[in-house]
Amino acid sequence: MFTIKNHLEVKNNHLLIGGADTTALAEQYGTPLYVTNEARIIENFSAYRKAFPKADIYYAAKANGSFAIMRILARQGAGTDVFSYGELYMALLAGIPREKILFNGNSKTDFELQKAVELGVKVSVDSQDELHTLSGIAERTGKTAEIAFRVNPDVSTPTHPKISTGLRTSKFGIPAEEVVDTYREASGLPGIAPCGIHCHIGSQILDTEPFVEATQKMMDLVKEVVELGIDLKFVDMGSGLGIPYKKGEQTPKPQDLADAILPVFNDRTQALGTSPKLILEPGRYIVADTTILLTRVNTVKKAAKNFVGVDAGFNLLIRPAMYDSYHYVVVANKASSPPEEIYTVVGPICETGDIFAKDRELPRVEKGDLIALLDAGAYGFSMSSQYNGRPRCAEALVKDGEADIIRSSEGIEDLMAKQKLPARLM
Amino acid sequence: MFTIKNHLEVKNNHLLIGGADTTALAEQYGTPLYVTNEARIIENFSAYRKAFPKADIYYAAKANGSFAIMRILARQGAGTDVFSYGELYMALLAGIPREKILFNGNSKTDFELQKAVELGVKVSVDSQDELHTLSGIAERTGKTAEIAFRVNPDVSTPTHPKISTGLRTSKFGIPAEEVVDTYREASGLPGIAPCGIHCHIGSQILDTEPFVEATQKMMDLVKEVVELGIDLKFVDMGSGLGIPYKKGEQTPKPQDLADAILPVFNDRTQALGTSPKLILEPGRYIVADTTILLTRVNTVKKAAKNFVGVDAGFNLLIRPAMYDSYHYVVVANKASSPPEEIYTVVGPICETGDIFAKDRELPRVEKGDLIALLDAGAYGFSMSSQYNGRPRCAEALVKDGEADIIRSSEGIEDLMAKQKLPARLM
Repeated sequence: MFTIKNHLEVKNNHLLIGGADTTALAEQYGTPLYVTNEARIIENFSAYRKAFPKADIYYAAKANGSFAIMRILARQGAGTDVFSYGELYMALLAGIPREKILFNGNSKTDFELQKAVELGVKVSVDSQDELHTLSGIAERTGKTAEIAFRVNPDVSTPTHPKISTGLRTSKFGIPAEEVVDTYREASGLPGIAPCGIHCHIGSQILDTEPFVEATQKMMDLVKEVVELGIDLKFVDMGSGLGIPYKKGEQTPKPQDLADAILPVFNDRTQALGTSPKLILEPGRYIVADTTILLTRVNTVKKAAKNFVGVDAGFNLLIRPAMYDSYHYVVVANKASSPPEEIYTVVGPICETGDIFAKDRELPRVEKGDLIALLDAGAYGFSMSSQYNGRPRCAEALVKDGEADIIRSSEGIEDLMAKQKLPARLM
Repeated sequence: MFTIKNHLEVKNNHLLIGGADTTALAEQYGTPLYVTNEARIIENFSAYRKAFPKADIYYAAKANGSFAIMRILARQGAGTDVFSYGELYMALLAGIPREKILFNGNSKTDFELQKAVELGVKVSVDSQDELHTLSGIAERTGKTAEIAFRVNPDVSTPTHPKISTGLRTSKFGIPAEEVVDTYREASGLPGIAPCGIHCHIGSQILDTEPFVEATQKMMDLVKEVVELGIDLKFVDMGSGLGIPYKKGEQTPKPQDLADAILPVFNDRTQALGTSPKLILEPGRYIVADTTILLTRVNTVKKAAKNFVGVDAGFNLLIRPAMYDSYHYVVVANKASSPPEEIYTVVGPICETGDIFAKDRELPRVEKGDLIALLDAGAYGFSMSSQYNGRPRCAEALVKDGEADIIRSSEGIEDLMAKQKLPARLM
């Protein structure tokens, strides 16, 4: 037995996850199949909690909205950052306490704001329009909305432009120079209790420096807001810590992030004489490496490249097609066989971009082999679709070598379920 | 009343589709809402049929797998090109005759091949692995599989690289130089009847020249295959004709495609003394401009840009976020108001890339306004997901001013439907 990447072990040439043999899982539950290692979720969450003992850790549900995963994190004491009423509903049902939920987002519907106020969760307000809508709702319902403003700190991050969220031109947040005026206005509005401040600079960030820059900018704003007489109970720095998708890649850990930003945060709050709570919103870091996508080889074709056609497509894991993302590939039934050839692993979707992995050195691959796409737990199933008429696959959760299905696979009936024909077309 | 783009009219400052007022549709059915104009589907299909009176038109179901749309096209005499068992099942149920179905794809499962043989539909074979699997299935079941080979013609097309499918390095098809040998091999295999040849060079192609080049290359191959003594009953040239997403853009019509490729096709087949049927597989051209996505404005924010936050996100229409695609935008309740400001229309999804339209000159936009994203019928709902915990929206079909819901909107219960907790997490 040896460890091939992170928590994944190899025994008798088979890839294991959480002590379970992936070839047996694929046999039992079919493919494609997402498999998550429960223990790894807890390890990752604990790393954050240990690095930030005084902070609240709000899991970013958008990374993986699986109900079972939220329940596991709820039991670990996580809060959550939600981006829709759907996520809010599931977070509450999963047992996340409402006082540890922040309703995030740049374009919430009135219905969503109404629900947030009714259910008493904090709201990250992204615009003046939203502030006034929220005040109206709070007034009508006789409730108080506890809010933070989402600040656009104008911090550049070295990540994919589609997920760099803190640049001045991004759609998110209130421009830094308008923030103080906005708090001033909010503190005079009925039903509004400004009690926090919030930012988020991006996702899959592999350097702590942008976090330090954002912390400094945010603490400048905190100072100004506190000087208005507003009692800021929390400073939510978002998150976006990347993970090593490539084997052996050196990336910062939660402790590195803590070492970088806590001195700034602590010094600045002490100087102000206030003690707001630090909130962090890790998503990818908590779940990405906990999960693999198992997929069976349908065909191997020697053409301009050696193509391995598998039974999962970008409808199940869109990151490589959408962001040119890298996922480490293991031939799960030949996990300790030596590499022999260069292969490109592709899905069955009708687009040329449906490629999971380009030019990887793998053991000889044959029809029927089992491919594991690693680090598929964040922005994997959560972005899945039924494109090309493909029902979505099942998800399994493994603990101590035993697996439970936490999401059943869809069938063709699920493609048809919501459809109906007008009488004239019957 | 005037026409704003294609078949879409404006009356009393409101955008109409198929004679129905979009503001009334949004009021009645809620937003976001996909709305399809039945008459336009028939017009587009008829344009193809008229341009290619002797060809079979196989609608590419991947563009829009709505059952109602397939039923409408079935009644017009369309065949279909399917990419999965799910699409095959729905095509048959919609009334497409099995002899007008081609099962396409580069990585089919054994189950899919088994179903294709059982159901007696033609198969486009993409690799030798697949050829041998199919032969085994046909032999075991005592059936004959009618096949074409998908040829990689190595034709470069000026479209987005992710949807250019005919380049040598793409995952699709058998390299041109191996095609003749592959037919020779196939003709000796039990259960295999090679009866066609197939290629596809891409999607959203705005020039007929690559089609001419592909036709020439394919007819070279047809000649060689026919000389082997194989009776080719059809030549499937795929399709990929683009549409004018930008207003006023001049793009080739089916008649232009016919004028460009039919002389080549007819001359070459006559010279060979054979009369294979031409098959074309239009998808986008048939459905893209038939459909709009209606979405309500949640918020307008003046920041680095003028952001209009709407209630649809890239979970419902991923083309702009994934391919930087352009969709024409109309403020549906101010459709003849003069443009006043530059706006960027964004969705509620957690990613910076969730932008539908950048820097568009629009009438003054306010919270509550209704935005129509035009030409959303192809690769719109078919690629939709529940990302960010967002149930998918409804689809309506309009005919003669009357609307029917052809797909009900999902609720939060649909996010939960397939999920289950292991006992230890209850």
